[in-house]
Amino acid sequence: MTSPSQHFADQITAFDAAAAATVVAAMRADRPLVQNITNHVVMNWTANVLLAAGASPAMVHAPEEAAEFAALARALVINIGTLDQAFVAGMMAAAAAARDRKLPWVLDPVGVGATAYRNRVAADLLGFGPSVIRANAGEIMALAGVAGGAQRGVDSLSGSEAAIAAGKALSARTGAVVAVTGATDYVIAGARITAVPGGHPISQQVTGTGCAATALVGACLAVAPAEAAAVAALSLMKRAAEAASRTASGPGTFATLFVDALAQG
Amino acid sequence: MTSPSQHFADQITAFDAAAAATVVAAMRADRPLVQNITNHVVMNWTANVLLAAGASPAMVHAPEEAAEFAALARALVINIGTLDQAFVAGMMAAAAAARDRKLPWVLDPVGVGATAYRNRVAADLLGFGPSVIRANAGEIMALAGVAGGAQRGVDSLSGSEAAIAAGKALSARTGAVVAVTGATDYVIAGARITAVPGGHPISQQVTGTGCAATALVGACLAVAPAEAAAVAALSLMKRAAEAASRTASGPGTFATLFVDALAQG
Amino acid sequence: MTSPSQHFADQITAFDAAAAATVVAAMRADRPLVQNITNHVVMNWTANVLLAAGASPAMVHAPEEAAEFAALARALVINIGTLDQAFVAGMMAAAAAARDRKLPWVLDPVGVGATAYRNRVAADLLGFGPSVIRANAGEIMALAGVAGGAQRGVDSLSGSEAAIAAGKALSARTGAVVAVTGATDYVIAGARITAVPGGHPISQQVTGTGCAATALVGACLAVAPAEAAAVAALSLMKRAAEAASRTASGPGTFATLFVDALAQG
Repeated sequence: MTSPSQHFADQITAFDAAAAATVVAAMRADRPLVQNITNHVVMNWTANVLLAAGASPAMVHAPEEAAEFAALARALVINIGTLDQAFVAGMMAAAAAARDRKLPWVLDPVGVGATAYRNRVAADLLGFGPSVIRANAGEIMALAGVAGGAQRGVDSLSGSEAAIAAGKALSARTGAVVAVTGATDYVIAGARITAVPGGHPISQQVTGTGCAATALVGACLAVAPAEAAAVAALSLMKRAAEAASRTASGPGTFATLFVDALAQG
Repeated sequence: MTSPSQHFADQITAFDAAAAATVVAAMRADRPLVQNITNHVVMNWTANVLLAAGASPAMVHAPEEAAEFAALARALVINIGTLDQAFVAGMMAAAAAARDRKLPWVLDPVGVGATAYRNRVAADLLGFGPSVIRANAGEIMALAGVAGGAQRGVDSLSGSEAAIAAGKALSARTGAVVAVTGATDYVIAGARITAVPGGHPISQQVTGTGCAATALVGACLAVAPAEAAAVAALSLMKRAAEAASRTASGPGTFATLFVDALAQG
Repeated sequence: MTSPSQHFADQITAFDAAAAATVVAAMRADRPLVQNITNHVVMNWTANVLLAAGASPAMVHAPEEAAEFAALARALVINIGTLDQAFVAGMMAAAAAARDRKLPWVLDPVGVGATAYRNRVAADLLGFGPSVIRANAGEIMALAGVAGGAQRGVDSLSGSEAAIAAGKALSARTGAVVAVTGATDYVIAGARITAVPGGHPISQQVTGTGCAATALVGACLAVAPAEAAAVAALSLMKRAAEAASRTASGPGTFATLFVDALAQG
């Protein structure tokens, strides 16, 4: 009997830390304006994450202005964590503008699989061709229509390895780079799989660490192709989590020190 | 002349710390999925509070999915701090689903008494039979229709003792356990009143400590009956506030250390 | 060639620190109820800022209740950072109530100039006669219809000095006190310009420091005339930023310590 990671072991390559650092440095030098249509829970948190990392966030989601604003942005983030009709309309308008303007964008299908509404919104957004899809294993499996994803609210019960096959199918079907995050993160670009190790389990006790990863993918998309952007952003997350965990005394101080660590590089 | 607490002194029993700790431990062991329909101000904060305490929060409030999601949840929290039509529709759908499925749920009637809209929404929600109502003294008095509650925005000017009579009436009328929080918290189950002492006044300088208490009541409702769940959650709040206040240098560090303390507690 | 600040140097007076401290002390003694209709990103942050500084915040924005609640409040804050139709309706209802009741209020035109929708909402709100307009240089220039404001999302690329002329025009046209914040803040009341120096650049790495300044202007408006309130609030921000920056190790700890510093005065 083999584990999923053993099954794919010959296809997985380790990430290039120096290349990732170069992308992060380029993002910081550019300070790209990132349009961030995200959920109510993490708006403050992801704005602070983007600012600390060196990007310039703008939370603009009203359907009256989301598409117009996309013309000013260097990248777009769409996160479906909390939905309502106006937000969904803004997401669709912005995603359509991104497609038309060839603006790179990243989709975070939070909680897909949990309700029919989430499934429909996620499927509609997939139609606009995201550059990257970033999610946990359960969400990737739900999005790929693969059975076996034990979805538990917005947390994932499955290790990230369990979603590699689903991620490959999803990447092949959509053309997007698929980033599955977990104890080890996997960035899947067609047949190529890059593993990003590291981080710290205390991240799971802070809401929105996955959303933060998605936001940072958005920032890096402004300066790098999708696969390199995803690897760079996830590597930045892992390193900041490691640094913060060294002196944190719990999830509260961890979250604060994580933001500090993002700013230190 | 006697104070309200003197008046009820013979009816008030001290809480059982060991029983409360047992409930919290059971909640942590189960890691229940808690559907949390709460206000915009505290979504991030209460998600982090629930995660730190060991529960699994899900903020799902859209009317298109709130009822469907309730089928996955182990408990439901409804907090009316910030309202709009879509949120209210989602609250009603989720509360109806909770009633139909016998899912335990807790109502936080933030700011009831301040506007006619809040009064109407709170009254409508009461009709779905919450297991627990958690509020400050002014809100409990407003909700009970008792004159004399000097309501000041979302803060209470009255000591929690002032609402014991109103709380008893509200508990009798609705069948809910009523939790009045303040310097001392009182959990009222029909004629039985349990006092939960402790905590620290700096809690009042942090927004959403009441909302956090409500969210933790929700988490404990997944593993214990209403009265025991309310006592356990309020006791956990009090102990975490005491621990955080020992090293905090102000409300900013207090909030951070409070989250740390919940995870240790 | 002269810089904008040199051009206006003879018109700029230094602020009176003692007078500013008196206003802040009066606000703290009164603990005014401040209705805060603000954006999704900073609701938690500005509520905590107001509580730490000694005010009593209430986030009430639903069109069903925003005007009714204004009758209870001592001052009103309207911040257009994130918009949707219901929020905008609530803003207009509250602003109309403030005008009718002569309730002092402050407008934060976040991101004005970036989209037609923002420009329209900001122009409509101006019609209700804000007591103070608080914004960064790019936003003040956009609001004044002055060319040359290089607007970048919600951050400003122009030094605050660049907006002094636009601020004077805006103050003359609207009768409002105009507060332009940046490395140095300028409070413009007709022909009078007061400079508030100090602060720390790390503030720019935390989302919502401008929004926090606006919220504190609102709190001070409850106890002082517009010009004095603006100067006092901006001075409080500057001093708290200086105090927090002394021990912060990055933007995460800075934000936490900034809240502590506000509570210490």
